[in-house]
Amino acid sequence: MPIFKTALANLAHCLNKAEANAVARKFSPEVLAGLRLAPDMLPLAAQVRIACDAAKNGSARVSGLEAPKFADDETTLAQLQERIAKTLAWLAALPADAFDGREAQDVTFPVGKDATRTIKADAYLSHWAIPNVYFHATTAYALLRQAGVDLGKVDFLLGRQAPAA
Amino acid sequence: MPIFKTALANLAHCLNKAEANAVARKFSPEVLAGLRLAPDMLPLAAQVRIACDAAKNGSARVSGLEAPKFADDETTLAQLQERIAKTLAWLAALPADAFDGREAQDVTFPVGKDATRTIKADAYLSHWAIPNVYFHATTAYALLRQAGVDLGKVDFLLGRQAPAA
Repeated sequence: MPIFKTALANLAHCLNKAEANAVARKFSPEVLAGLRLAPDMLPLAAQVRIACDAAKNGSARVSGLEAPKFADDETTLAQLQERIAKTLAWLAALPADAFDGREAQDVTFPVGKDATRTIKADAYLSHWAIPNVYFHATTAYALLRQAGVDLGKVDFLLGRQAPAA
Repeated sequence: MPIFKTALANLAHCLNKAEANAVARKFSPEVLAGLRLAPDMLPLAAQVRIACDAAKNGSARVSGLEAPKFADDETTLAQLQERIAKTLAWLAALPADAFDGREAQDVTFPVGKDATRTIKADAYLSHWAIPNVYFHATTAYALLRQAGVDLGKVDFLLGRQAPAA
């Protein structure tokens, strides 16, 4: 859970810098939400949503607690920040021991559109939920970097604690 | 450690597909090694090297064992595959209990070019070593996707176990 919280808080920090950068360069920050790294890759808005959902649904599946569903209708960076904030608030409300003793439980999760897999909770976290969060958070970061936002790896790793460039 | 091994093995799988794709499209696979997502981002070769080193040096710092140093002179995909293979071989040779009981030990590591940080080993793994591996592996993936290599997220997450598209 600390991994999910840090990754999402740092993603929010990168989006904050993206918003400020767009304002400074005098274009609407919303343009960034629609950018893609390739025509057949998902836009920034979806990368942020899926990073949030991978953390939320991953935590729900392992803890057995129910996660809220969000509408997937964000089109602005402010709405994406709200999506992250709602996800972080739900993660923060989970009991500290929500994952305790659940390592060996089976977790069933969707793989692609038509299939599911069932593996132990610790393998699910290590090889599915955690890499999924980083996969989408890094894709969002890469997309913003390519768009010219002044980010460095310390923003991704340390978020608000990153020393100013 | 299983996280590092899976992430690097899946990266090797993606590079295999990249090589096959370049051959099918009749350009030298080496071109891919030099591609960047942005002029001020590192090329694919460096992304692969740093993903390897984050796993290797992270494991060395936590276990207290010495890691081999590699020359950082790879220019071909075959050489990058070799870098991954050497890293995986070193990780495989670590004792299974190399990390046991070391969670609360201090780890000191470089942050940027001029600074170091010291934190507990479990926080170092969760908030530095693991995100670093995924950061560079995902950047490599994103770069190959943008270059038109036929990869999907299952290649990143499942590697050779990924169902054919």
